[in-house]
Amino acid sequence: MSGESEFDRIARYFAPLAAGFPGALGLTDDAALLDPGAGCTLVVSTDAQVEGVHFLPAADPALVAAKILRCSVSDLAAMGAEPLAYTLATFWTADIDSAWLARFSQGLAHEQAALGIKLAGGDTVKTPGPLSFSVTVFGTIPIGQAIRRKGAEIGDLVAVTGTIGDAFLGLKLSRQPALAADWGLSGEEAAFLTERYWRPNPRLASMIALRGAVSAALDISDGLIADLGHIAATSGVGIVLQAGAVPLSSAAQKAVTRLSLADLLTGGDDYEIALTISPKKAAILDEAARASGVPITIVGRCVAGSGVRVYDGAGQALPLGQTGFRHF
Amino acid sequence: MSGESEFDRIARYFAPLAAGFPGALGLTDDAALLDPGAGCTLVVSTDAQVEGVHFLPAADPALVAAKILRCSVSDLAAMGAEPLAYTLATFWTADIDSAWLARFSQGLAHEQAALGIKLAGGDTVKTPGPLSFSVTVFGTIPIGQAIRRKGAEIGDLVAVTGTIGDAFLGLKLSRQPALAADWGLSGEEAAFLTERYWRPNPRLASMIALRGAVSAALDISDGLIADLGHIAATSGVGIVLQAGAVPLSSAAQKAVTRLSLADLLTGGDDYEIALTISPKKAAILDEAARASGVPITIVGRCVAGSGVRVYDGAGQALPLGQTGFRHF
Repeated sequence: MSGESEFDRIARYFAPLAAGFPGALGLTDDAALLDPGAGCTLVVSTDAQVEGVHFLPAADPALVAAKILRCSVSDLAAMGAEPLAYTLATFWTADIDSAWLARFSQGLAHEQAALGIKLAGGDTVKTPGPLSFSVTVFGTIPIGQAIRRKGAEIGDLVAVTGTIGDAFLGLKLSRQPALAADWGLSGEEAAFLTERYWRPNPRLASMIALRGAVSAALDISDGLIADLGHIAATSGVGIVLQAGAVPLSSAAQKAVTRLSLADLLTGGDDYEIALTISPKKAAILDEAARASGVPITIVGRCVAGSGVRVYDGAGQALPLGQTGFRHF
Repeated sequence: MSGESEFDRIARYFAPLAAGFPGALGLTDDAALLDPGAGCTLVVSTDAQVEGVHFLPAADPALVAAKILRCSVSDLAAMGAEPLAYTLATFWTADIDSAWLARFSQGLAHEQAALGIKLAGGDTVKTPGPLSFSVTVFGTIPIGQAIRRKGAEIGDLVAVTGTIGDAFLGLKLSRQPALAADWGLSGEEAAFLTERYWRPNPRLASMIALRGAVSAALDISDGLIADLGHIAATSGVGIVLQAGAVPLSSAAQKAVTRLSLADLLTGGDDYEIALTISPKKAAILDEAARASGVPITIVGRCVAGSGVRVYDGAGQALPLGQTGFRHF
């Protein structure tokens, strides 16, 4: 961008995002300072996203900002952490101009306020390749309370937050808006699904309420079945999923009549939480749902064995050709 | 790469780099756990690097590993921090194969051991663009002791660690090996300069020894003059640099006879430290140099005003056309 140096861009578009976070040192130093606070540990996660691979190209910069920040914060939610700060590495293409940057940084400001997180540092470089980002998010959690993928036990219930498959449908709609009519969706329903793709909701309040209660958890990015497979593999259990119990939004219920339920269970980008919990503690799920305003639905159970097996409402094994699915 | 999933790659090439760092959780979770320890704060820096922009293309993967990790750790050195861990976001191109990954991860293992740092997490994604990386490094420092760019005062001495300009020459030699003969360099001298480009030495020991003594510091990445300009601007002082006092390696002394000294002062990629210190504390520079085995040389002084002015050995203002240079 002609005439505007990296320093100008940082000062104009990014330094305001660090305001109110003293450890960012105004983005003028070599590094930032982070303090988890007494009795807490820092939870750290790094994500990389590439235009055309991880998000649709030529999108509204504010939506790009929402997607990259919310997907990263979702990793904090999965561990039960509270957001603190993030660093952002941006690989700019030549066509990024002031208008794009202004809209992108406004988007970040909006999401920061919603998520309770501040910019702590980063780097901006030029690339001849696609627009790309790496976000490193920092959260805090009392020492010893981080929720891991490992820990599910035979007999544990399997549950998910929110609804599954909306983002998969929203991605399809973002690519082909005409599908809304095919699926019999109202404009509002189509907008709801598209929003679910671009602005996932990290389930922070749900998981903070579930600290110390759940045996394992992760956020669903690869698809519900594939991600349950990760819990199964890391914990050394098998998982039986009742497909009919998987919660769908009303918009997804309409769309799924024209698609396969398997698409929604393997589609990815949900950024809901899949978790396991002892049946003895099941009441805590209701409390967490009430406290956070986000439903939590029991969808299966941990069993002896390995991998994920999926049954439909009639008790028949659901045939799934996806790579995420593994047989017992 | 055919047949090897992201999970396989992480398990094979990256999980061993996290061994011995419990907070990495074996790279199987959504996030890592970092604890700065009692009385310490976490120092965090994020860097982005693109092949063909920040490092030469088609290079030995072990050298790429060295360059990206060492440049990032240099930011920790600049603040006076001790390395703890790092996360790595990698944007792989289609031509990255097992042999490349094996050599790259061996390189990281080698550098980790040299720098005292472990892999804590990250992400690997595919890109149609150039091979790119983002490294986020974590260090620890006693609360309140981080060394900043801000803090230089009028009358302070300006000093640098090591020697300046080697990496600039090493980059030229990497591109055009025939220059070694033009510059009258032995094979050893040429190799020394090339190594200085690819494997910068974060001045960790020097800066840990100087905690509490220096008034400002940064690592020299943009070029000595440009980076002194950053200290000057952030601290609200001017800096007078005596070009004749700038320490050059014997190889650089040979090469500079065919080049301009200004090239070395503006070339960048040094990853030495530029610092300011009260004249009353100058003796500590000698102690730190002895303790670390790395010379520290006084090259200038902070004055009233702003920007950087450069004088040659005869006391004449050195004309410099570089963007990094700002007049008073």
